[in-house]
Amino acid sequence: MSRPKPLSGFPEFLPEQALVEQRVIDIVRDTYELHGFARIETRAVETIEELSRKGEITKEVYTVKRLHADPHDAADLGLHFDLTVPFARYVLENSGHLNFPFRRYQIQKVWRGERPQEGRYREFLQADIDVIGENELAQHHDLEVILVLLATFERLHREVGIAPCLMRVNNRKLAMGFYAALGIEDTMKIVQTVDKIDKIGEAGVRAELAKLDATDHQIDQILAMALIRTDDPQQLRTQVAALGLDHEQLAQGLDELCDVIATAAEQFPGRVIADLRISRGLDYYTGTVMETELIGMESLGAICAGGRYDALATDGKRTYPGVGISLGLTRILAPLLTKNKLHATRSVPSAVLVAVTDDDNRSQANGVAAALRARGIACEVAPKASKFGKQIAYADKRGIPYVWFDGISGSVKDIRTGQQDEADAHQWTPAAADLHAQVVTAH
Amino acid sequence: MSRPKPLSGFPEFLPEQALVEQRVIDIVRDTYELHGFARIETRAVETIEELSRKGEITKEVYTVKRLHADPHDAADLGLHFDLTVPFARYVLENSGHLNFPFRRYQIQKVWRGERPQEGRYREFLQADIDVIGENELAQHHDLEVILVLLATFERLHREVGIAPCLMRVNNRKLAMGFYAALGIEDTMKIVQTVDKIDKIGEAGVRAELAKLDATDHQIDQILAMALIRTDDPQQLRTQVAALGLDHEQLAQGLDELCDVIATAAEQFPGRVIADLRISRGLDYYTGTVMETELIGMESLGAICAGGRYDALATDGKRTYPGVGISLGLTRILAPLLTKNKLHATRSVPSAVLVAVTDDDNRSQANGVAAALRARGIACEVAPKASKFGKQIAYADKRGIPYVWFDGISGSVKDIRTGQQDEADAHQWTPAAADLHAQVVTAH
Repeated sequence: MSRPKPLSGFPEFLPEQALVEQRVIDIVRDTYELHGFARIETRAVETIEELSRKGEITKEVYTVKRLHADPHDAADLGLHFDLTVPFARYVLENSGHLNFPFRRYQIQKVWRGERPQEGRYREFLQADIDVIGENELAQHHDLEVILVLLATFERLHREVGIAPCLMRVNNRKLAMGFYAALGIEDTMKIVQTVDKIDKIGEAGVRAELAKLDATDHQIDQILAMALIRTDDPQQLRTQVAALGLDHEQLAQGLDELCDVIATAAEQFPGRVIADLRISRGLDYYTGTVMETELIGMESLGAICAGGRYDALATDGKRTYPGVGISLGLTRILAPLLTKNKLHATRSVPSAVLVAVTDDDNRSQANGVAAALRARGIACEVAPKASKFGKQIAYADKRGIPYVWFDGISGSVKDIRTGQQDEADAHQWTPAAADLHAQVVTAH
Repeated sequence: MSRPKPLSGFPEFLPEQALVEQRVIDIVRDTYELHGFARIETRAVETIEELSRKGEITKEVYTVKRLHADPHDAADLGLHFDLTVPFARYVLENSGHLNFPFRRYQIQKVWRGERPQEGRYREFLQADIDVIGENELAQHHDLEVILVLLATFERLHREVGIAPCLMRVNNRKLAMGFYAALGIEDTMKIVQTVDKIDKIGEAGVRAELAKLDATDHQIDQILAMALIRTDDPQQLRTQVAALGLDHEQLAQGLDELCDVIATAAEQFPGRVIADLRISRGLDYYTGTVMETELIGMESLGAICAGGRYDALATDGKRTYPGVGISLGLTRILAPLLTKNKLHATRSVPSAVLVAVTDDDNRSQANGVAAALRARGIACEVAPKASKFGKQIAYADKRGIPYVWFDGISGSVKDIRTGQQDEADAHQWTPAAADLHAQVVTAH
């Protein structure tokens, strides 16, 4: 068997990288739970029918079929390509057992059969939150999910050293009302064109809008609005008013956006901004929309995005409006880990290696390990009673900071400093920073 | 859109069930890490070539293919059906970056295209540990992985109320040596026949052995050995000796088994037994083999199994021997959760609902929530400033034990007792048992 090669688009991590990933997942999960979001997991597969509801995304679906199924049968299952479609199905399927408004988080892999390229993956981890109501959902939940994500990014910045975020927020009603006030009928086309501004630039958008038969005046106005960008709600009102358009939907969207920005920018200054070019291409958003980048790492793209939708799903009798955000963990972590910008201080959970003095007396070392574990200290026992220098090298290679010698009432050596002290395995604790592997940022 | 129906064989949990599952996963993960096992995750897909190495299992594989791939192209990817094949591939692929002996755990979903039936799933969660050496791996690691699993089951029993386990251990060398001493050549066939004894009974095994041309004497001896079952190493030696056969491999296997049982039964009395009928059907095991049941829930089958293998993988130059055990979390949890034998005290992480007195002053309630979260207390803010009775009912429906009123210096009510006390949101903490949802066992 020759050495297997990685599959392009399916990133996998070494143990020390997986430790960093786990730490990040733990922070995300903890923050979501502190805000009352309940974890669910959905199965990896959905019916092709369910996956096809959104139309064009079906081209990226991986189908799933039993190897010995009739080769002429069409596949009727596919891997989920996001966590929104499965969640919509889960809500409909279980609505009688859920309490609304329902806050849920989901941290799971998703799959897309895309051509792999820099920053695009075929398998990647997402961490979504949504708040879903039954028939109605109050406006303040838009602010809620934004604050949860800003709190998450703040912890990832402070606790793991990931770059701080900038969340760019807009409101679909504001844009739709504005375009309607300009006399444009197919407003969705305009939304999708303006959405490309960061990719194709102002001139590109101008050219595409012209092809959609927008007049020069309309194009000027659309671009003038798209370039508004401020974290000051008063400024926002002034700049939008300066464009001189009046429309009920525009006014409502502006109010909603000002409310969100006012509180979010106050609580997380410098991390959130109203940016009227943001529109998200998907047509199911109906209010607040947001995109997030990491400051100084904009090349990673929007590593977090979402918005408000009036109907996540409907079963005919009831509709389920909601607001949600999706955080792309693999899109953040894979580049940072691969380029070694983040790494862990060790490759194993063990804080201590218990040395073995005599192969016939492993039970002594096992007893020390049991005493340490009983107090939450991860450890492992040396595989062989080799010379102590070799056992210390075993620990060093794995980044294990301490080596224990000579039984319960023994001694413990910090192999980084060489300091060795008498210690009792029922009492001793490592320095707090050594209990678990730490994440280190390279600059 | 009508209400979707569950897919048979793909279990999903409600939020309060998912809380129980998460708690179980956390205990398993914590125990594995305390023993120095490092987490890795492998991608969900492997090449069909990789998945086919073990031959007959390929019939259960789910293939994966892009929806718009040429329908005539054979699929070249499939979902992994266990975590051993992906781990073998991972070790070969990354061997230059791993330190051996390498302890890893993997808690991931696996997929099998089986016909769904009671206790069989098409998607299920496994939690595996393995210790892998490069070219060699000391015998004591067999005992190590057994002790890790026994410690895991003990915590699941004590902390979550899952039934205690009985691990049945045997040794492939003992069996192979015994059959060889009886003059049998195709010993693997005998192993696979004896493995069915719990399913088809002694008479069934007798009949199948006769078809394999075993003599009456050989059949008597095979069954006499298969019926040996004791947790006393001395008894084990005596009973095997009484069969009157002598063989080097038999003696070596017996020594290994006695060593394992002696320590394991001493540390976990009543939880582990030498049981010479256990053989595991797979042909790659070469020493210790084990199977685990839950006492009183034997109908769930072997919810945990594994063994020693001399070559997990080889790249021509090096071989990677190992020993590992796989824990079937879905096989344990799905029946217990579905029959409501285990449930959580609430359906959300929130320990506190912060009541809202005035819809225009949500920021007061948000401030309380922020103060509680800053000290690790999960909470949510009421969606509406409805009558307090209604807000309390909101908490009650979700199992949230406390409702907070009137700002940072406010009061908190335990809605189970009705007791309401003044409290400061920067100081107050819930009873320790209320901080997180608890798992409750129904008897």
